[in-house]
Amino acid sequence: MSRFQATLDAVAAAMARETERGAPASYIPELAGVDPSRFGVAVAPVDAARPPAAAGDADVRFSIQSVCKVFMLTLALERAGDALWRRVGREPSGDPFNSIVQLEHERGVPRNPFINAGAIVVADVLLADRTPEAAILDVLTLVRRLCGDEGVGCDARVAASEARTGMRNRALANFMAAEGNLRHPVEQVLQVYFHCCAIAMSCRQLAAAGRYLAAAGRTGGCDPVITPQRARRINALMLTCGHYDASGEFAFSVGIPGKSGVGGGILGVVPGVASLAVWSPGLNAKGNSLIGSKAMAMLAARTGWSVFGPLDDPAPGR
Amino acid sequence: MSRFQATLDAVAAAMARETERGAPASYIPELAGVDPSRFGVAVAPVDAARPPAAAGDADVRFSIQSVCKVFMLTLALERAGDALWRRVGREPSGDPFNSIVQLEHERGVPRNPFINAGAIVVADVLLADRTPEAAILDVLTLVRRLCGDEGVGCDARVAASEARTGMRNRALANFMAAEGNLRHPVEQVLQVYFHCCAIAMSCRQLAAAGRYLAAAGRTGGCDPVITPQRARRINALMLTCGHYDASGEFAFSVGIPGKSGVGGGILGVVPGVASLAVWSPGLNAKGNSLIGSKAMAMLAARTGWSVFGPLDDPAPGR
Amino acid sequence: MSRFQATLDAVAAAMARETERGAPASYIPELAGVDPSRFGVAVAPVDAARPPAAAGDADVRFSIQSVCKVFMLTLALERAGDALWRRVGREPSGDPFNSIVQLEHERGVPRNPFINAGAIVVADVLLADRTPEAAILDVLTLVRRLCGDEGVGCDARVAASEARTGMRNRALANFMAAEGNLRHPVEQVLQVYFHCCAIAMSCRQLAAAGRYLAAAGRTGGCDPVITPQRARRINALMLTCGHYDASGEFAFSVGIPGKSGVGGGILGVVPGVASLAVWSPGLNAKGNSLIGSKAMAMLAARTGWSVFGPLDDPAPGR
Amino acid sequence: MSRFQATLDAVAAAMARETERGAPASYIPELAGVDPSRFGVAVAPVDAARPPAAAGDADVRFSIQSVCKVFMLTLALERAGDALWRRVGREPSGDPFNSIVQLEHERGVPRNPFINAGAIVVADVLLADRTPEAAILDVLTLVRRLCGDEGVGCDARVAASEARTGMRNRALANFMAAEGNLRHPVEQVLQVYFHCCAIAMSCRQLAAAGRYLAAAGRTGGCDPVITPQRARRINALMLTCGHYDASGEFAFSVGIPGKSGVGGGILGVVPGVASLAVWSPGLNAKGNSLIGSKAMAMLAARTGWSVFGPLDDPAPGR
Repeated sequence: MSRFQATLDAVAAAMARETERGAPASYIPELAGVDPSRFGVAVAPVDAARPPAAAGDADVRFSIQSVCKVFMLTLALERAGDALWRRVGREPSGDPFNSIVQLEHERGVPRNPFINAGAIVVADVLLADRTPEAAILDVLTLVRRLCGDEGVGCDARVAASEARTGMRNRALANFMAAEGNLRHPVEQVLQVYFHCCAIAMSCRQLAAAGRYLAAAGRTGGCDPVITPQRARRINALMLTCGHYDASGEFAFSVGIPGKSGVGGGILGVVPGVASLAVWSPGLNAKGNSLIGSKAMAMLAARTGWSVFGPLDDPAPGR
Repeated sequence: MSRFQATLDAVAAAMARETERGAPASYIPELAGVDPSRFGVAVAPVDAARPPAAAGDADVRFSIQSVCKVFMLTLALERAGDALWRRVGREPSGDPFNSIVQLEHERGVPRNPFINAGAIVVADVLLADRTPEAAILDVLTLVRRLCGDEGVGCDARVAASEARTGMRNRALANFMAAEGNLRHPVEQVLQVYFHCCAIAMSCRQLAAAGRYLAAAGRTGGCDPVITPQRARRINALMLTCGHYDASGEFAFSVGIPGKSGVGGGILGVVPGVASLAVWSPGLNAKGNSLIGSKAMAMLAARTGWSVFGPLDDPAPGR
Repeated sequence: MSRFQATLDAVAAAMARETERGAPASYIPELAGVDPSRFGVAVAPVDAARPPAAAGDADVRFSIQSVCKVFMLTLALERAGDALWRRVGREPSGDPFNSIVQLEHERGVPRNPFINAGAIVVADVLLADRTPEAAILDVLTLVRRLCGDEGVGCDARVAASEARTGMRNRALANFMAAEGNLRHPVEQVLQVYFHCCAIAMSCRQLAAAGRYLAAAGRTGGCDPVITPQRARRINALMLTCGHYDASGEFAFSVGIPGKSGVGGGILGVVPGVASLAVWSPGLNAKGNSLIGSKAMAMLAARTGWSVFGPLDDPAPGR
Repeated sequence: MSRFQATLDAVAAAMARETERGAPASYIPELAGVDPSRFGVAVAPVDAARPPAAAGDADVRFSIQSVCKVFMLTLALERAGDALWRRVGREPSGDPFNSIVQLEHERGVPRNPFINAGAIVVADVLLADRTPEAAILDVLTLVRRLCGDEGVGCDARVAASEARTGMRNRALANFMAAEGNLRHPVEQVLQVYFHCCAIAMSCRQLAAAGRYLAAAGRTGGCDPVITPQRARRINALMLTCGHYDASGEFAFSVGIPGKSGVGGGILGVVPGVASLAVWSPGLNAKGNSLIGSKAMAMLAARTGWSVFGPLDDPAPGR
């Protein structure tokens, strides 16, 4: 049995006792309807030979939403190389995730690839003069390979709902197109973006898929996914920009690189040690999973993973 | 001899060979006139019984400038406790260090204590209805205790030059006073701030002074400086906000919590391992020490200190 | 012969001698290709019994572009009444015509109906749950009635080009939709907006069409077009907001309410006296007709129409 | 008796009946304590031989506050000429009167001379390497000459209160100094500005003082105060920028160039006809005199002075 199993069981038990669980995202029915009592957690050690540990609803699939930005960026960096950084920045934004003011101030260049505008530029890179379907399939192929499960796919209803309600993302995309920072038709770019956000995965799959970031860009037995330098770049971006306007808070309370999505999932990376995923659909005021963040903090406290020094354990009594 | 000595010697030798060294800050004569060929580095292990290692101009004093914000925050947190966070935020700003737009947008509450506006609020907390001299002495007393050297002091000419040219800081302070976020007269608050920035220290002193942040808030033999939780908070802030608009870049290229100053100094913290200080007066385009950043990156690469995975060594040939 | 004829002839002659004429708008081929040597001017006295005076290319049709916002607003005010002002402001914007920052700051409510965002809200009001074609026909019907010419129509190629290149307007529209300030599908709203901008009229037609604004909302023999109060409101908006970021300059140099378009046309209103129209396709740095503005200034100087006191005549020798 | 007397009496009588009168400015005690039932009005015909008409508290002195910006600008334009416009703009700001965002966006150049930042630049021009006292005396000398009363002066307590509470103006001034747009020490510039705002005048004096703006820059018998072109420039600025964020509303409801102050005074200009002044200390939500604005509207309606067409009379029954 994995050395992490007991810790995950304790985390899942503690989270089950939490009564304040936040509310699921309400802007599309597919997210609004998810049961807030759900909670899953999984840890994938860097050594691919060792199986992931998991607890709770670790095999229930959920909409990974913005967590997909990590995989989109990975693929875009391999495609475009460092030229990507001429079209999107690498610094924290200090603004909510969909601010358009920053875009106007900086002439259509988003601050980083983890705010929506930045991920839309990344989607434009992924299109590469092909069909949206081809670009979406590329991301799916990467994710399937990373988690070793061909069954991973997009939830078509989620993607359709995103497209129907995504006026703010459409505003961002059109603004960047006007500034010359999109190369393909706006609707095609958004189609890629919305479909990637609609990828459905379980915690176990997500933890496995993120393992390469903990393993210097490699994943067991295969060719490297990306170079060690780019893995480090993504990890640094996750720590400084992975939680929108609450990135600083997550750095303090958890202390590991992480990327959250409004579906309630969070991917975490402990370089050289493990990747991990938690999921609980209720969100806090900043749009990140309330129970998921708490679980991450408890996990980091018990494992000593925080890069900033020892953490208080939010659930000391076992 | 310290196990770090050979590495520091190699770093100092490599940095001596660098020809592009940036230009010292030019806004006050005391900084503009410093010789850009200077370079110092020092490492203080968490175990206070073990002496710091050092190389280059590690005993030459320089103006620590914004590095003082770390010590000011430490003291203010002990004084005001978490109530401080009602008056200053804890998130990256995404703006240059002296932007006033953010302040207007957020009604006089700065984004974090490491941008100038935030440190001015911290100076206001330190005043605590006393004279500016008393508040400045408090900070000096802390720093002297931390580095074990009663000789550390403020450079009066630097402080006077800062006061004479600090119109932008005066604008920030008056704006926050208008919004009710300063409790003492603006000029008194600025006097504290300018004098703290004018503290002069050597790399060896600075590394020693920062050791408590690597040691969960304790420093050898004494009472704790701050709680482990607050040390972690400061470390997280250093990583996400310590280099203004280049914090993301420093996180990637060095990967440890750091705080830079326009005097060319950088304080770094490796939790559980060591604190370190580098100094070279020439700055890069973002206002951080050019050679200092490079030295930090080389040091982190050779020690494996980066929290985001293995670094490329910028000076592989020894 | 009209008492204005000699003045118009002198203005046309003076403008023909001007060598610096600006460059036509370049963002769509239909505007870019217009001959910059063109110039037309027409004046329609408030007394509808008296014929308009005209000179130069006064019967050549051009794309009225943003001048259409005056007619759109007139119709929307009659439809929605003062409730319109809950969705769009009435103050100068102090920003370029397509700034999105203001929109974000004020939660999707544009500053006034003469910036693009404001006119897009007006287009949404005009839609009123009908087809875009019906709304466009409404505006055309009003304009045809006002100028007494059933032949006025939209230039379909211009409208198509606007739609193809209008990413920034699409960004504005989507942003307002996200904030809940559009009631119809964004593309339908934009279709109305783009087609209104593509209305083609001559100076003689445009001057006649604007006469109701000089005549307290009435036009000869017919029912009132709008109430006197709304005519005054529109005139005040034209003076304070009619030339985007150069409205203050136009107020000074011409001193009458005016609305310009990037097609090079300007509609002017002298309450109680006359309406006037000028056209010359070359633009100045602020996007207003260079020769048109100069002609307006000369005309105002010779007629004493400036509301701010006597003007210098830019072409004193006749 | 003046032909305006009956109208002014009717206006004063109607205003006396108004029960909603707003609240005086509260930020300094000298303004907060003024009786809100006060109301004065005066009209000075362009023909200086004809005496001003007046009604109500037309001879009670009040703090003219921002109305002083008109006289400061007049003097600065004569001193610096059009070079002034390189340091301050001439367009409406679209922001509240003390926004610092615009200043940062435009590198320390205020949008127009009637927002606080713009008037502070004007004060810097007036200093001209002399003492603040000399510059203040210059403005007083101009105002005294214009209204023909040597007794006009500054209220020292008001000026002292302004200086004590003027943190936001101090922020603006320091910001502009940091951007290089102030040439003299900030505190000296503010001393000039605060003292000009503290000038105390009656409606009768203020109406007389503004007469030159209605008379193409001349005032009876004397040398011209300014050129006709500059008088027109100031009138145009008053119409587009004279009421901060409510300038568009004043243009609509009154329709003449006007400049308001938080002391409750408003100066109006009808080019070629008359200048006028009203005063009532209670303010509306935008910081302009509530009863004063209403009185101006009634006066404009009854005289037909609105430049945008006939006004509704807000008090039709006499």
